[in-house]
Amino acid sequence: MATPERTVQKYGGTSLGDLDRIRAVAARVKRRWEQGLNVAVVVSAMGGETNRLLALARSLSGEPDARELDVLLSTGEQVSCALLSLALKEQGVPAESLLGHQVRISTDSAHGKARIQSIKVSRIERAFEERKVAVVAGFQGIDSDDNITTLGRGGSDTTAVALAAALGATSCDICTDVDGVYTTDPRTCDQAVRLEKISYDEMLELAGLGAKVLQIRAVECAKRYGVKLRVCSSFGDDEGTWVVPEEEGMEEVLVSGVAFDRDQAKITVKLVPDTPGLAASLFGPLADKGVVVDMIVQNVSADGHTDLTFTVSGEDFSAATNLVQDVAEKVGAGGIDSSDTVAKVSVVGLGMRNHAGVAARMFEVLSDAGINIQMISTSEIKISVVIERDDVDKAVKLLHEAFVEDPGSLAESKPA
Amino acid sequence: MATPERTVQKYGGTSLGDLDRIRAVAARVKRRWEQGLNVAVVVSAMGGETNRLLALARSLSGEPDARELDVLLSTGEQVSCALLSLALKEQGVPAESLLGHQVRISTDSAHGKARIQSIKVSRIERAFEERKVAVVAGFQGIDSDDNITTLGRGGSDTTAVALAAALGATSCDICTDVDGVYTTDPRTCDQAVRLEKISYDEMLELAGLGAKVLQIRAVECAKRYGVKLRVCSSFGDDEGTWVVPEEEGMEEVLVSGVAFDRDQAKITVKLVPDTPGLAASLFGPLADKGVVVDMIVQNVSADGHTDLTFTVSGEDFSAATNLVQDVAEKVGAGGIDSSDTVAKVSVVGLGMRNHAGVAARMFEVLSDAGINIQMISTSEIKISVVIERDDVDKAVKLLHEAFVEDPGSLAESKPA
Repeated sequence: MATPERTVQKYGGTSLGDLDRIRAVAARVKRRWEQGLNVAVVVSAMGGETNRLLALARSLSGEPDARELDVLLSTGEQVSCALLSLALKEQGVPAESLLGHQVRISTDSAHGKARIQSIKVSRIERAFEERKVAVVAGFQGIDSDDNITTLGRGGSDTTAVALAAALGATSCDICTDVDGVYTTDPRTCDQAVRLEKISYDEMLELAGLGAKVLQIRAVECAKRYGVKLRVCSSFGDDEGTWVVPEEEGMEEVLVSGVAFDRDQAKITVKLVPDTPGLAASLFGPLADKGVVVDMIVQNVSADGHTDLTFTVSGEDFSAATNLVQDVAEKVGAGGIDSSDTVAKVSVVGLGMRNHAGVAARMFEVLSDAGINIQMISTSEIKISVVIERDDVDKAVKLLHEAFVEDPGSLAESKPA
Repeated sequence: MATPERTVQKYGGTSLGDLDRIRAVAARVKRRWEQGLNVAVVVSAMGGETNRLLALARSLSGEPDARELDVLLSTGEQVSCALLSLALKEQGVPAESLLGHQVRISTDSAHGKARIQSIKVSRIERAFEERKVAVVAGFQGIDSDDNITTLGRGGSDTTAVALAAALGATSCDICTDVDGVYTTDPRTCDQAVRLEKISYDEMLELAGLGAKVLQIRAVECAKRYGVKLRVCSSFGDDEGTWVVPEEEGMEEVLVSGVAFDRDQAKITVKLVPDTPGLAASLFGPLADKGVVVDMIVQNVSADGHTDLTFTVSGEDFSAATNLVQDVAEKVGAGGIDSSDTVAKVSVVGLGMRNHAGVAARMFEVLSDAGINIQMISTSEIKISVVIERDDVDKAVKLLHEAFVEDPGSLAESKPA
């Protein structure tokens, strides 16, 4: 008899939000198992559980110890793990829950943001040999000293992908409350359509831009190990969106999606003396405080002075402003300007690698609509602009129309 | 510098019922730690948590798989463990939570009722070397295949005692919501007084009789390894009751306590043919169904037939009656009598070993009060009687008065 194909499915907290949903997930896992596949399921904590536990810890301690927080939070996945195994058995499917220390998902010791170093698959393979479904706790691992670690928010995606790689699974389904990756957010633009497939690189750019269906680290891991990912609904049977290695023909689609992040703030440090080490003295303190800086733009220096603008999330705005104020005085800058009413809009697509017209067309579309561009940043397959928050809906609709719904005019001008 | 003395403290679910109580427990642990002792704390799940988890499992499955149930229930202790460690650190006490698989509390594989086989103390000793408080999850262990096991209800007491033995601790405090072991239940008899100390054997008899301050297995374990146990309040600073090896002078106290169990039922199988194997054919099926039989009384056979009476808990009454009905027919018994309105009252004390007068005096006290004795059972240090439930309060008050408050008359008649 041939060895059965292996697959990994990951279910998020919303999909496991109550006992009825857990039963529904069990039924869904059962269908794959009945098809003859060996299935490893990776689970998150039940919806709301991680926040409940976090609130307990924060009531006891302003800055909860990272090691103990991991011990606490990891119980969330342990509970879902056991409950899903019970639900599977109740439906006649042999199943076994496995925690980080049982599988031996080895990580470094960076509590709260640990990185997976290796996964032993022998225990899961033993379960497979008995035709059991292996129900693996996501988000958690164990360091070399047997301390429990967690991978950070959304870490279960990473667990699933790493496990799929270690098991040589033919696919890894990320089952969630949306049914795939869309060309843009359907709530903002009703012309949004689901993508059948998308490349790892495009998904990485989208994930980094607030299209929060997949963790960046999980996509990076999938890319590194060539794991074929599928984002699909936990409840329906639609095919969803495949996130796959770049294939021939993918570049023919100029722009795969229009992404945006409404919650941005920008800070400009004016007339900074343009000396070596300036950026370090500015961004070092921000990094120390855990402020994530997104876009950074610095103009060419004039008269030994320059303006430097960067964006942070709205949440970090006031902390960042205070820190930058201090630094600005120390380095003798001319002052700072700031705004927390901005947003970022981006177009992403492999096709733009070989096509110079995308940026120009994007600026033209926005300009025609009277939308002012405050910052621009580009990568090989992405162009992002910062605009006023009030303009986001209009910008997304127009860019989606120009690039996704009717990309004709640009395709015609594609170089031979 | 001398190696600090080691002590173990165990806190139950009520003592850890909310965050304020967890803070209070941390403050109490801190006082011991500040005295220079190395402290290992064993914790139960927060009050109500185990039942909440059990209800989730039972909603999914009528008979939840024992292995998965252990994975689920053990999260309760894991949560308290992490929270108490956080509370200790917040109060400036270095602390480290340790779970069953981290300490390596090795058990057999009997899920839900596992027995501890060994405890490695190296990880706890490492914590002690750093002057950390080790906060150990009670109730849970790990089998030889790294499966999580639990020790059964109240198992945290056993964890604490076994840990105290393994660590060579000078004492093991069982901190709970009562402040010690009483001569009888103060709610029933307001003359009840707290015992300063009691022997393991007396405590074993009391624990088995519904005085539920300590698990029998924990007392057995303490006796085997000579661990000095103390039952005390989690909230006050009273000395509580010491449970210790038998000491000189202990026998001078005739009766240490009057225990009772209101929730009993008795079943009599009448005119059974008195043949070998009869008891086995009767009690085998009961054991198979998990019915715990307490007292068994069989009269001397007359004409090859005998009556056999036994007691079970009220909870098991109807199941036991049904089973016994079947067996009675098979063995050709004359029928069965049963009652679920009975109760058991016992007097316990090392002193009665050398004193024949206790039983007689007990029967006299009950008889004078018009209380009918339905069954009698004795051990070396205990006399139990079954009476009507309605008579319990009166019986307990009278026996307490006769043996504990005013034992003079009997002591006088003690043989030289």
